Amino acid sequence: MERHFHEELKGLKVKLLQMGIVVEEAIEKAVEALLERNEKLARDVIDEERIINQFEISVDDKGHGLLAIGQPMAVDLRFITAILKINNDLERMGDHAVNIAERALILMKEPPLKANLRLPEMAEASLKMLREALDSFINENVDLARNVLQRDDEVDAYNDKLYLQMEELIEEDPSLVKRGMNLVMIGHNLERIADLANNIAEDVIYMKEGKEVRHHADKD
Amino acid sequence: MERHFHEELKGLKVKLLQMGIVVEEAIEKAVEALLERNEKLARDVIDEERIINQFEISVDDKGHGLLAIGQPMAVDLRFITAILKINNDLERMGDHAVNIAERALILMKEPPLKANLRLPEMAEASLKMLREALDSFINENVDLARNVLQRDDEVDAYNDKLYLQMEELIEEDPSLVKRGMNLVMIGHNLERIADLANNIAEDVIYMKEGKEVRHHADKD
Repeated sequence: MERHFHEELKGLKVKLLQMGIVVEEAIEKAVEALLERNEKLARDVIDEERIINQFEISVDDKGHGLLAIGQPMAVDLRFITAILKINNDLERMGDHAVNIAERALILMKEPPLKANLRLPEMAEASLKMLREALDSFINENVDLARNVLQRDDEVDAYNDKLYLQMEELIEEDPSLVKRGMNLVMIGHNLERIADLANNIAEDVIYMKEGKEVRHHADKD
Repeated sequence: MERHFHEELKGLKVKLLQMGIVVEEAIEKAVEALLERNEKLARDVIDEERIINQFEISVDDKGHGLLAIGQPMAVDLRFITAILKINNDLERMGDHAVNIAERALILMKEPPLKANLRLPEMAEASLKMLREALDSFINENVDLARNVLQRDDEVDAYNDKLYLQMEELIEEDPSLVKRGMNLVMIGHNLERIADLANNIAEDVIYMKEGKEVRHHADKD
């Protein structure tokens, strides 16, 4: 029973990581679809959302199953509840990838907007946070998780910049409003992905240290 | 032990409901601050975020504590994991209330925008979903939870309408861009609040029926 439990737990961890890879790819593809104006790629992201949703349901069911039958000890318990939370965060990231792909499809029908919006850099920063957050979970590496937390501000700064740039551009040329608002929402989606990577890093720290790092910015 | 466990569980449920009321009030206040251009009220919402965050940490700790010591049966287990999820959703709603309050502060510095944006109706629809979702949890009322799911489209429709209205208004008068973009983001926050109320309703159904209703729209 004990041995069986830990094998099941390992299997669950592997499943979560597979899901992480699928989500990472969805975000990459959505951004590529946007930058390359590739309709097929955008549609793939939208179609493949169901795969992510199936992963979520499966991880959730297995996690609850282990909680129910395993009567896990404190350390395993924290591991399982971390998996359930990360599962939720990954699924939400998948939603954001779909939203980016949907807006990419709208933008493809419009003329390209000539402006250096630094979306590739912003997307790369968000993706790096996701990769490192998952890595910190696999290797139970708290230092790496703390790195992720520190880099959230970078993505926020890109997003604030994008917002102001769009405000200016639209004010100068109101015919850009549709494109500008969609680009602002894409920036918002990338910023949310970074936030969710942040959540994962926080869960890793909580899992390893039992220490609460959420809302660290609230404390004054 | 058994009796103690169920008393603790009841206490946890009460705490979650207190948190729900605080979150509901935060959203109401944020919207009122926006509509009445009330700076004090907006600042209250921002200040009071820490109360919601403290609730989240406390519910989370107690929930994990019960999982660890209680060795709960399947039905209690589902109840506890539902609480942990709802806790998370409520905290995110609190974030959205803060975001609305922050944008209300920006908008107060601008002249009022004369347009019927139906924000009060949209806010009311989102709040009603939240109230009913919490109610369905308190009373373990699956029918009520299903009601909530059905009304998500209403809020989405308000939001789509707001988005298009803003696009048009800004195109006509580009000096409205700052106000328009902030109002679009407020609409987005309300729409997210409705989505999170939806999540709560789904968790109630899962808790009572063990039946998966997430991603119900995906299945074709």
